[in-house]
Amino acid sequence: MRIYLAGPDVFLPDPWAAAAAKKAVCARFGAEGVFPMDPVHCPEADAAAEPFLAIYLRNEAHLRACDAVLANLTPFRGPSADAGTVYEVGFMRALGRRVAGYSNDPRPFASRTLDFLGEQVRRRADGSWEDAEGLHLENFDCHDNLMIDGGIRAAGGPFVARAVPEAERWRDLVAFEAALRLLLEG
Amino acid sequence: MRIYLAGPDVFLPDPWAAAAAKKAVCARFGAEGVFPMDPVHCPEADAAAEPFLAIYLRNEAHLRACDAVLANLTPFRGPSADAGTVYEVGFMRALGRRVAGYSNDPRPFASRTLDFLGEQVRRRADGSWEDAEGLHLENFDCHDNLMIDGGIRAAGGPFVARAVPEAERWRDLVAFEAALRLLLEG
Repeated sequence: MRIYLAGPDVFLPDPWAAAAAKKAVCARFGAEGVFPMDPVHCPEADAAAEPFLAIYLRNEAHLRACDAVLANLTPFRGPSADAGTVYEVGFMRALGRRVAGYSNDPRPFASRTLDFLGEQVRRRADGSWEDAEGLHLENFDCHDNLMIDGGIRAAGGPFVARAVPEAERWRDLVAFEAALRLLLEG
Repeated sequence: MRIYLAGPDVFLPDPWAAAAAKKAVCARFGAEGVFPMDPVHCPEADAAAEPFLAIYLRNEAHLRACDAVLANLTPFRGPSADAGTVYEVGFMRALGRRVAGYSNDPRPFASRTLDFLGEQVRRRADGSWEDAEGLHLENFDCHDNLMIDGGIRAAGGPFVARAVPEAERWRDLVAFEAALRLLLEG
């Protein structure tokens, strides 16, 4: 199984080390981990004048050539996961591929959003929460926006969340490995 | 053309009013706007035990039955767009449908991310920025994470961003209408 390793890991100071660590775990289980920054044959990307578009097209080519996505959904600069990773989860669900996720922060989305907004939230008459601009806070027992949890569920999962020390949250691979095992068993 | 009206508009205190306003603009141009909360035939959703999953499955059914998505990518509780909306953009790109977006905040993603992180950013030796955990800041001339800009571009666009007064940013439809016109002309 070729597994696209989605996540903000690409932003780490040592993305290649992060890629190698994840690929080694995949290899131990007989799977192939594909990192977004891996080389890929993509003539459209080679022809793209703009660097951002070349990167996008290579990532898309990788996604199309993988059987599954295993997404790092650890919250990133806000209550939700990295936007690029979320895009890739939706993309793979629409292609009918396997979708798995993990997070190194097990708090529910509603709690994280309340923490993020702090003093700015207020109660509506029906007891639900809204932000300073009047926009509702989702309050399901979900890890992130329901489209992400729903997409993983609709695709057969798995999703694993686990608390890790703050300093390790971008490198700890215990939840990653647990999700990988469930993905390969599923 | 049936156009899925993606966005955090569903979280407004008056989502049906927001839906009606967007649908009226679509109708003026001979298109049909489909709001995520519109009723839809979806036996899987009817059978779902969990409310979040029922909502997800109905949204997915709407997406599959639309020709295009017109996404409200105005930044939502952080530097990026609403995670559910981003998921839907990736989903529709993978289905090969038309993808359009608009934002009522024209600042580039890099500026918004710098503003969001504030004192926590620092320079790397190569002149690029990283956050307090050492994760790189994208610095392309993009409106959001490059996967979103890239997906819209790869699908043929359009994307329209426009500054509106803060108090109107969830209701102003000038950029929405401009993106819709370009989508219908394209």
